[in-house]
Amino acid sequence: MFNAASIAGIRELCQQLPSGDNPALEAARARQAMLTKPAGSLGRLEETAILLARWQGSVKPRLDNIHVLVFAGSHGIAARGVSAFPSEVNAQMVANFRAGGAAINQLAAAAGAKLRVVDLGIEKPTADFTCAPAMTEEELVTAINEGANSVPANADLICLGEMGIGNTTVAAALSAALFGGNGLVWVGRGTGVDDQGLKRKADVVDAALALHGEQLGDPLVALQCVGGRELAAMFGATLAARQHSIPVLLDGFVTTAAAAVLARLVDGGLDHVLSGHVSAEAQHRRLLDLLGLKPLLDLGMRLGEASGAGVAINILRAAVACHNGMATFAEAGVSAG
Amino acid sequence: MFNAASIAGIRELCQQLPSGDNPALEAARARQAMLTKPAGSLGRLEETAILLARWQGSVKPRLDNIHVLVFAGSHGIAARGVSAFPSEVNAQMVANFRAGGAAINQLAAAAGAKLRVVDLGIEKPTADFTCAPAMTEEELVTAINEGANSVPANADLICLGEMGIGNTTVAAALSAALFGGNGLVWVGRGTGVDDQGLKRKADVVDAALALHGEQLGDPLVALQCVGGRELAAMFGATLAARQHSIPVLLDGFVTTAAAAVLARLVDGGLDHVLSGHVSAEAQHRRLLDLLGLKPLLDLGMRLGEASGAGVAINILRAAVACHNGMATFAEAGVSAG
Repeated sequence: MFNAASIAGIRELCQQLPSGDNPALEAARARQAMLTKPAGSLGRLEETAILLARWQGSVKPRLDNIHVLVFAGSHGIAARGVSAFPSEVNAQMVANFRAGGAAINQLAAAAGAKLRVVDLGIEKPTADFTCAPAMTEEELVTAINEGANSVPANADLICLGEMGIGNTTVAAALSAALFGGNGLVWVGRGTGVDDQGLKRKADVVDAALALHGEQLGDPLVALQCVGGRELAAMFGATLAARQHSIPVLLDGFVTTAAAAVLARLVDGGLDHVLSGHVSAEAQHRRLLDLLGLKPLLDLGMRLGEASGAGVAINILRAAVACHNGMATFAEAGVSAG
Repeated sequence: MFNAASIAGIRELCQQLPSGDNPALEAARARQAMLTKPAGSLGRLEETAILLARWQGSVKPRLDNIHVLVFAGSHGIAARGVSAFPSEVNAQMVANFRAGGAAINQLAAAAGAKLRVVDLGIEKPTADFTCAPAMTEEELVTAINEGANSVPANADLICLGEMGIGNTTVAAALSAALFGGNGLVWVGRGTGVDDQGLKRKADVVDAALALHGEQLGDPLVALQCVGGRELAAMFGATLAARQHSIPVLLDGFVTTAAAAVLARLVDGGLDHVLSGHVSAEAQHRRLLDLLGLKPLLDLGMRLGEASGAGVAINILRAAVACHNGMATFAEAGVSAG
């Protein structure tokens, strides 16, 4: 049970993170070198299998128990015309997830993953962060705890995703707080705003940066001031997964911005994290570059709801299938070149 | 039964190709616009599902019967030091495929595809094409027929791959013949040659271009003079799949060079073809660009044996799962923005 009482408590937990199983990592690397293929010829499948081995502490990683967690939140700034869709869509899409009709339902099923949707209070938007902090410290900590407690301790892999009309603007503000740069640097078209919408998004971010000022230098305070409940929950899930040494697969820009808070709190804080894809949201690649994360897929997707991660699970399955199942040169009697 | 008697017969077959089912294409496009997501937000998953619908002639495409065909051949020019591996590896790897120990065995199984390995005579290398045509016309036609007859008429998707020590040099020579450019433009490191090996590969290509000269202006004669049996078979399989309106998923550089022969024979000859991935073989991207094919994956793979296509099957499955399974805005009661 993850039960932090305050920002200070979370900060403390972040200083006690496991660093992965190095013997398993080395054994997995050695195994890759013995498999019947030219060295390195499976490209990123090789490094992916090795990362899973490191965090699962097993030379042959498993993907039997994959959990896709989709966190839904609602945003005060949505009233400022930063999205092509109204906030009512949050509840409609949560109902669609529960009825099995959304993209992530199909993708999770196709990838053999369990899907859980966590509603963090979509009927209760955060405060408009151009006027006040998005959340109180208590609200922030509650959302972090809820995200952390959504992570099953026995999972082989956690995939993160979100639903929240307006939240690419939230991710832009949080990215600016964590890495510098103004609204124009960090906003994109999200689900499809026009040029005026893009300008409104940049203005909202700039107003937030001006209002909250130097407080944003602290990553957790930034998450409180310009974040949202689903971002706080995804940060909490990323932290809890690390505590359990469970690898995490990220989705798009919003998910990556939430995880970035951990990278800013702890060196190597995202060593257990893979980027599933780079979205068509233009600023996602910039953020991934700053975090040193290389996306597995680049399919022009920009849906959120863990859809990019859902597709990327299949890449992990391919990596593990080769790593665990291939014959070695010695087993197959193949000349090693 | 595909049973061409001569190059002239194959040329004739190429003039009678189906062009896909446009009503199914339009119905699939209309369906995408009704699904519960912002328009275009599933990126390349959308166009992929639509392409499958067009060629299968069904608004909801199927992927129940996927065949991965791996063609193995042996090359006279392998004796010229163009590979990091000896030709003995051909037979060893075919045995490994049959025993289930290779990467493609794991990838085909993980993707729910049937694997068939077609040995086109690995004990009998083609002629060294720096001294003579790689094949006689009869040998070429036999290999094309064999490839074509490997395509089950009821397949939902065909994935092509190959095994043949030295065949990235063959693909380089064929690409140069089809699109111009010399050896240096078209050779890469294959399974891992050093700088001297790279130079030897370029020299072999240049010698072949000088020897065969203007004959190479005819794509089928080019395939005969500087191709190989597994490339001829992959060309035949691509052609036969088109005759049956079966979509084709390509693997790497060698596979793409073989399919390129059809593109040079017929405008739109590869309209039924998807590129599974772009390999780390540097010239593959150049060839894909010339063919107007956009790879689904870029994972730094360079193994051949259909491995990139095997991973990409999962992208097609994700595309079809969303396309067929998602709720429409009307079904789910979601505001369409």
